[in-house]
Amino acid sequence: MTFAILFGGSSFEHEISIVSAITLKKVLKKNSLLFIFLDQEREFYLIDSQKMKSDTFSSGAYKKEKKLSLGKDGFSIGGFLGSKALSFDVLLNLIHGRDGEDGKIAALMEFYGVSFIGPRLEASVLSYSKRHTKMLARELGIGVMEYRVLYRGGSREHDLDYPLIVKPDHLGSSIGVSVVRSAAELDYALDVAFELDDTVLLEPFVEGICEYNLAGCKTSLWELSLVEEPQKEELLDFDKKYRDFSRDERVREAVIDAGLKERLEEAFKKIYDPLFAGSLIRCDFFVVEGGEVYLNEINPIPGSMAHYLFEDFEGMLERLASHLPWEKSIEIDYRYIHSIQSAKGKA
Amino acid sequence: MTFAILFGGSSFEHEISIVSAITLKKVLKKNSLLFIFLDQEREFYLIDSQKMKSDTFSSGAYKKEKKLSLGKDGFSIGGFLGSKALSFDVLLNLIHGRDGEDGKIAALMEFYGVSFIGPRLEASVLSYSKRHTKMLARELGIGVMEYRVLYRGGSREHDLDYPLIVKPDHLGSSIGVSVVRSAAELDYALDVAFELDDTVLLEPFVEGICEYNLAGCKTSLWELSLVEEPQKEELLDFDKKYRDFSRDERVREAVIDAGLKERLEEAFKKIYDPLFAGSLIRCDFFVVEGGEVYLNEINPIPGSMAHYLFEDFEGMLERLASHLPWEKSIEIDYRYIHSIQSAKGKA
Repeated sequence: MTFAILFGGSSFEHEISIVSAITLKKVLKKNSLLFIFLDQEREFYLIDSQKMKSDTFSSGAYKKEKKLSLGKDGFSIGGFLGSKALSFDVLLNLIHGRDGEDGKIAALMEFYGVSFIGPRLEASVLSYSKRHTKMLARELGIGVMEYRVLYRGGSREHDLDYPLIVKPDHLGSSIGVSVVRSAAELDYALDVAFELDDTVLLEPFVEGICEYNLAGCKTSLWELSLVEEPQKEELLDFDKKYRDFSRDERVREAVIDAGLKERLEEAFKKIYDPLFAGSLIRCDFFVVEGGEVYLNEINPIPGSMAHYLFEDFEGMLERLASHLPWEKSIEIDYRYIHSIQSAKGKA
Repeated sequence: MTFAILFGGSSFEHEISIVSAITLKKVLKKNSLLFIFLDQEREFYLIDSQKMKSDTFSSGAYKKEKKLSLGKDGFSIGGFLGSKALSFDVLLNLIHGRDGEDGKIAALMEFYGVSFIGPRLEASVLSYSKRHTKMLARELGIGVMEYRVLYRGGSREHDLDYPLIVKPDHLGSSIGVSVVRSAAELDYALDVAFELDDTVLLEPFVEGICEYNLAGCKTSLWELSLVEEPQKEELLDFDKKYRDFSRDERVREAVIDAGLKERLEEAFKKIYDPLFAGSLIRCDFFVVEGGEVYLNEINPIPGSMAHYLFEDFEGMLERLASHLPWEKSIEIDYRYIHSIQSAKGKA
């Protein structure tokens, strides 16, 4: 099978995506790979596998690679005159943050009929916003940390106790996130967050809360990862997450009882099915006192696709590639226009 | 100002969109207009203004018009001697239903930097689904009719009393909607709805509920329409809505007291701002006993843009065109890759 790995994007996580793609080149050994880079100007390039090194991108050398156009027949090499279709079985959307996770790439692939692994349009938009993720979880009967929404230029008053966390609504990889321990620190944290986003969430910060990550997808059956307990630090900052994304070893399983594991898995399945069909996602959960599972966030395109959480990552991708949802076809027969024309004596 | 009217689409409401576009050609008198048709195969065509008649589309004659390509520099007209950019000031997204209202066109326009009037990606996805519309309204503190969600292939059991309404989650113009008066009628109504959508909502059907529609947008200030009381029929069916979309006269204002008008306007503003910036939407409300305002649905691209609800529709469009939100630009400086390279002694 040939996978086309799409990475880059006009995103704050552009560089993380490059690292994810380079990592997947090492991890995926049995299949053929193509590499499609989306640069910050939103031009697509086909990158020679030999050139999949970080300095190809940071130096601008990628601009010497083949430019791709995207249209009704998918990606093609060359211009509109004499272009040649780029052939592959399925595209892996590996663009983190804007473009990849906000729904743009999903929309383009669906619009032009390109087969892809990744969140569909609706799933992208709901998981890209931390606020809409919470709305979704609540509607599904899954707990979330309480929150308040602030808008750029609006009131900064709120009724939460300190410490709290300030989170830009739409950014990943902890970008713009701050822990605020007193009212005096709030303005600065909000200034930082509003530099990046128009909408910002406030949440209570709970010291030492238990966090568990679970990834997976649905093929002919559920394929769930082991449960990972992420590093116990106040917040994983951007640098640490960045290094984290390039790792290529498997992690150790969290030591939890069977009941909690089952509750995490049940919550995952409720979130995934059917909205996230076609994607491999990671859900990050909190477990609060009493053992209740809260959804913290959904990563619909986790760093290097969270491959290190799976026994048979490559086989799972192949299986997922044969369980992708497709848009319904809509046949347009101009029945109403014909009936109006015939009523007017035109037809 | 030159407006490019985009219509058609791979949508159950393809024909309604053609009628909307023909109607707007009559309504917009002061500005230059271009007409871009998206056919069911998702090819774009530039339609000569003289040919903006329904049989151009129903006969397939549009295929003789100029084909357009969409890319980094917006739309362009192909040709043997290179392509030529299609120049206009702002595009009006007038594709109803799939493609136009589900977020695909918003994604394409945002991705390729085309200035457009219409719901942005996030607003599209939230209003395209009746379920997510309800989640949004609840989160904003606006009442909605209670509902249950059924999935294709899942259980059809529910705990609502009859009569109830069956609604496909993602379709507009009342397509696939049925009033069900007893359990015996439910299966048939669900079969119809699941032909069209994977997700279906059940809602109580309240005989003779008061309905009010309010449209508008935010330019330098709020520009809200008069309040319309739609026809009192059990359900406006597809044929009636279709004829409704082609009307070009103004409607009569609903007779309501100032307090109710204010509550409708307050609910509209809460929904619109900031999510729907850049679009002209129509919100359809129910008023339940006690005078509470419930949101029924959001039409982010109402038929012929609900022009008949406004005093100065064309002027408002011009003002909206100069109050469009823009994507933040993200500068990518390869700081992290450079710092890793220098740590490795490469830079």
